[in-house]
Amino acid sequence: MKVQIRLSGSGGQGVILAGIILAEAGIKMGLNAVQSQSYGPEARGGSSKAEVIIKKEDIFFTKVLKPDVFLSLTQDSFNKYSKDLAEDGIVVVDEELDTSTLKGKIYSLPIISTARDVMGKPMVANIIALGALSQVIEGLDEKTIEEAILARIPRGTEEVNIKAFHEGIRMIKEKM
Amino acid sequence: MKVQIRLSGSGGQGVILAGIILAEAGIKMGLNAVQSQSYGPEARGGSSKAEVIIKKEDIFFTKVLKPDVFLSLTQDSFNKYSKDLAEDGIVVVDEELDTSTLKGKIYSLPIISTARDVMGKPMVANIIALGALSQVIEGLDEKTIEEAILARIPRGTEEVNIKAFHEGIRMIKEKM
Repeated sequence: MKVQIRLSGSGGQGVILAGIILAEAGIKMGLNAVQSQSYGPEARGGSSKAEVIIKKEDIFFTKVLKPDVFLSLTQDSFNKYSKDLAEDGIVVVDEELDTSTLKGKIYSLPIISTARDVMGKPMVANIIALGALSQVIEGLDEKTIEEAILARIPRGTEEVNIKAFHEGIRMIKEKM
Repeated sequence: MKVQIRLSGSGGQGVILAGIILAEAGIKMGLNAVQSQSYGPEARGGSSKAEVIIKKEDIFFTKVLKPDVFLSLTQDSFNKYSKDLAEDGIVVVDEELDTSTLKGKIYSLPIISTARDVMGKPMVANIIALGALSQVIEGLDEKTIEEAILARIPRGTEEVNIKAFHEGIRMIKEKM
């Protein structure tokens, strides 16, 4: 089970909310979850990082050391937070990013441009990313993540967010 | 410096957002901060808990063991999360709560009723609570917490949130 997840992007992209949603989906599945933001000096540059641990067992150690799943929506956050991934880790990034410093399984997806140009709502990039992540995080199912999204988004935005979520699922499936 | 903070309430009361705001205020002050939600079996009952550590030094141990500052907005979350407070901890609770199981410095404030009846916006209870907490958390100043609030709330809600924040400051000062 892929249990250590790190989400990163710039301040306004909603990666903390995405982390909270994944943790709450874990709880809905009867698993244990810890979600955290740790702000070091690098956070002052505008990059944002959220981490989630989801597992069956009790969680005693709450820091993510080697992420199994890593999301990055900006080059800056990629450069800062991609250094300590697990060897068989899965990486999901926006397609604008240069990921040549990294080996392994990388899904490069049009997350930002789809949110902005196709959906007309830049702020749903995090939800598109959750759609993609729903296909690579073991132990969570699509339907439960969708429920957790609906419990956290502002009322009146259900339709666009669910559409964004399914768009994310579609775009990673195309590459699998 | 009071560095370990635990915020608790029911699911919809925005205690996680309040935790994120305090952590981001810490960063704005040049301190280090970690904000986390740890969901155990008790979270399934609808109680919500957010924890924040703010300090000058690097933060290696990210779990809150003995909170120096504890907020509780509901009886259920108070019962679940008030057991391991620091001996000289400061407690801020909604005035409807029965806190007779606890000794020490307790500020019992009309947070929920003020949000609902005076401000007409139940969802600002968390921001009223931040106003009260701003007077008991060492190392953070009022102005910086206000800036962190403005960076996180939905556009168009600035006025009611700033009013709520100052209401929280006023109500704890009356008891000090």
